[in-house]
Amino acid sequence: MEKKIAVILGDGIGPEVTQQSIKVLNAIAQRFGHSFSYSFGLMGADAIDKTGNPLPDETIETCLQSDAILFGAIGHPKYDNDPTAKVRPEQGLLRLRKELQLFANIRPISTYSSLQHLSPLKSKQLKGVDFIIFRELTGGIYFGKKELSEDGSYASDLCSYSKEEIERVSHLAFQYAQKRRKKLTLVDKANVLETSRLWRKIVQEIAAQYSDVAVDYMFVDNAAMQIILNPAQFDVVLTENMFGDIVSDEASVLSGSLGLLPSASVGNKTALFEPIHGSYPQAAGKDIANPLGSILSAAMLLDHFQMNKEAAAVREAVGWTLANGFVSKDIDAINNYSTTAIGDLIMDHI
Amino acid sequence: MEKKIAVILGDGIGPEVTQQSIKVLNAIAQRFGHSFSYSFGLMGADAIDKTGNPLPDETIETCLQSDAILFGAIGHPKYDNDPTAKVRPEQGLLRLRKELQLFANIRPISTYSSLQHLSPLKSKQLKGVDFIIFRELTGGIYFGKKELSEDGSYASDLCSYSKEEIERVSHLAFQYAQKRRKKLTLVDKANVLETSRLWRKIVQEIAAQYSDVAVDYMFVDNAAMQIILNPAQFDVVLTENMFGDIVSDEASVLSGSLGLLPSASVGNKTALFEPIHGSYPQAAGKDIANPLGSILSAAMLLDHFQMNKEAAAVREAVGWTLANGFVSKDIDAINNYSTTAIGDLIMDHI
Ligand SMILES: CC(C)[C@H](C(=O)O)[C@@H](O)C(=O)O
Ligand SMILES: CC(C)[C@H](C(=O)O)[C@@H](O)C(=O)O
Repeated sequence: MEKKIAVILGDGIGPEVTQQSIKVLNAIAQRFGHSFSYSFGLMGADAIDKTGNPLPDETIETCLQSDAILFGAIGHPKYDNDPTAKVRPEQGLLRLRKELQLFANIRPISTYSSLQHLSPLKSKQLKGVDFIIFRELTGGIYFGKKELSEDGSYASDLCSYSKEEIERVSHLAFQYAQKRRKKLTLVDKANVLETSRLWRKIVQEIAAQYSDVAVDYMFVDNAAMQIILNPAQFDVVLTENMFGDIVSDEASVLSGSLGLLPSASVGNKTALFEPIHGSYPQAAGKDIANPLGSILSAAMLLDHFQMNKEAAAVREAVGWTLANGFVSKDIDAINNYSTTAIGDLIMDHI
Repeated sequence: MEKKIAVILGDGIGPEVTQQSIKVLNAIAQRFGHSFSYSFGLMGADAIDKTGNPLPDETIETCLQSDAILFGAIGHPKYDNDPTAKVRPEQGLLRLRKELQLFANIRPISTYSSLQHLSPLKSKQLKGVDFIIFRELTGGIYFGKKELSEDGSYASDLCSYSKEEIERVSHLAFQYAQKRRKKLTLVDKANVLETSRLWRKIVQEIAAQYSDVAVDYMFVDNAAMQIILNPAQFDVVLTENMFGDIVSDEASVLSGSLGLLPSASVGNKTALFEPIHGSYPQAAGKDIANPLGSILSAAMLLDHFQMNKEAAAVREAVGWTLANGFVSKDIDAINNYSTTAIGDLIMDHI
C-alpha cells in the first residue's frame, strides 16, 4: 500500500524522537512491502521562529493531503511565563485540531511489568490496569470565546458544547467499548455545570443504542481519585476537553514512564499521532529522550491504516527492547541507550 | 471565650460524623473553660426533603450570626443521574459559599505514618509530603452564566475572574507560604485560557510584595502528574475553583484515607469547616463512617478562633486513636470501632 504521511517534528525533543519513528516506519514498509512518503510541515515555537506563525497555511495543506500525521511535541518555556505574549506555540496545535476537526483524542493507559518498579504506585494498584481515555478535542473551554477587559482587570473563557460535538466522540467511544470489556465511564461535573448535564443527557440517550455496554457516570473530582485508588475499574473513559486534558495526564503516571505513552487524535478525514510527553526542552538535542512514545504512536498510526500486523510488529519490537534493557535514561539512570540507538535497535529488529 | 457555632449536619453520613465533632468541641470547652453554643441549620438533600429548598433563608441567617460554621456533607445519588432536575442539593452549598463570600478553600495534605500501608503510593513517594491547597471558591466556572438552549441541543458555562477575586485569595495563600516553607505554586492553564493568563499576571504582580516567597507556575495537566510523581515538591498550591476541585481531591489520595482529611472555607466575615469526604450514602446511619475528617475540621475551626492550644489538643487526641488502633472500618476492615465509639474515645481523652 502507498500512504502519505505528514510529519511535524515540532519543538524540543520532538524532532529527535520523531526521526526514530520514521526509521521504524521505513523498516515496516520494507518488511511488509508498503510505500510511505513523508512531507514535512512546521508548527509550534519552531514555526514561530522560522515564520512568525505557529501554524503556517502550508502545514495545514500538507496535513490535509496526507493519510495521517506524525507529530513530535510542542511548546517552549520562553512563552509560558509571559501572560501577555500574543503569539504562542500551542495556538498552532489548537488551530490544527480545529481545522482538521480532530475531535477525539484517544489515549490507551497500560502498564508494563518490567516498568512497575518505576511507577509511583504500589504494584497491587496496577493489577489489571488497561483502559483507554476518549477526550473530546475540538470543543469546550479550549475553543470558546475569550475576553480580556481593556484595563486588564477581568477575563473570561466560555465553555460550550453542542449535541453534535458530544455525539460524534461518544459514538466512537461506545464502539471501542463494544470491542473491549464493554464498560464506559462518563467523567463530568453534572452537579455544577450545564455543559456536563448536556453531556450526561446525551450519553444516556446514546447508551440505549449500545445496550451491551454498561455505562456509569463519575464526577471529575471523584475520577481524579479513582484513577489512583482503583484504576483497574476503568475500561473506556469518555470526557470533555479540559477534564480530559487533566485526567489523561494524571492517568499517565500509572505506567511508570511518561516516555512511552502514545496518543491518537482522530477526525473524519485524517488523524494525528503523537507521544503524550511534551517538548521537554531540557533534553532537546542531547539524544537522551525516550523514543518509545513516538514509536508506539507510529504503531497507532499503522492501526489507523488497518495495518494491524504491522502495528503488532512494532509493539513486539518495543516489548523486546524493554525486556532486554535497551532503554533510555528516564527508565534506567545507569545502564541506558541513546534515543538514536534505541531507534536503530527497533529498526533492525523489524 | 464565648463562641456561636452554626451546625449544618447535611446529607448521608454528615449528621453522624458531625455529632462526634460536637462532643469533641464540648470536651474542649470544658477543659479550657470556653462556652460554645450551637444553632442548627438545614442544607442539601435533607433541606430539599424538608422544605423544598436546598438552602433555606434561615440557614443563611444562622450562619451570618455565627462565629464559624461546622458542616457535615452534601449530596444524594437520586439527583446525580437526573440531568433535568431543577433543584439539586449542591446548589445549597454553592449558594452558601457565595452568600457568605467564602472565597478560599484551604486543604492541608499530610500523611500519617501509621496509614502509609493504606496509601496507593509507594512509601518513598510519601516522604516529606506536607502541603496545603488554596482553592478559589466563589468564582470561575462554578458561578458564571449557564445556558441551555430551548431545544436542549446546546449548553454553555462561563468561566470568569476579576482582579479582586484573584487578589484576595492570593494574598491569603502568600501569607500562609510565609509562615511555612516559603514556596507557592500557581496551578493554571495559561497556555490555553485567558482567565489563567490573568491569574498568572496578577500572581506575578503580587509576588513582588512577598519577596521571601519563591513562586513557580505549573500547568494543571502537569500538576495532575506531579501531585503523584513528586508531591514533596509542593508547599502552598494556589489555584482557581474548578482546577482546585480536581487537584485537591486527587491529592487527598496521598494520605491513605479520605476519611480523615479536613478543610476550611474562609471569607472575611465567617468560615466554614467540613471533612472532604462526601455524603457517602451507602454508609449513612450505620455508625461505621470515619469521624476524624470532621473532628480535624473542628480542630481547624479552633485554630480559626485563635485557640491554637485547643486545636493541638484535638490533633493530639486524634493521633492517639490512630496510634492505638482505635480506627474505623475504612482504615482497618477487621479490628475496628464505630463512629460513635471513636468520638467517645477522643472526647474522653480530651
Ligand atoms: C499543549 C497543550 C495546548 C495541550 C492541551 O492542553 O490540549 C497538551 O497539554 C495536550 O494535552 O495535548
Ligand atoms: C459538592 C460539590 C458541588 C463540591 C464542589 O465541586 O465544589 C465538592 O466537590 C467540593 O469540593 O466541595
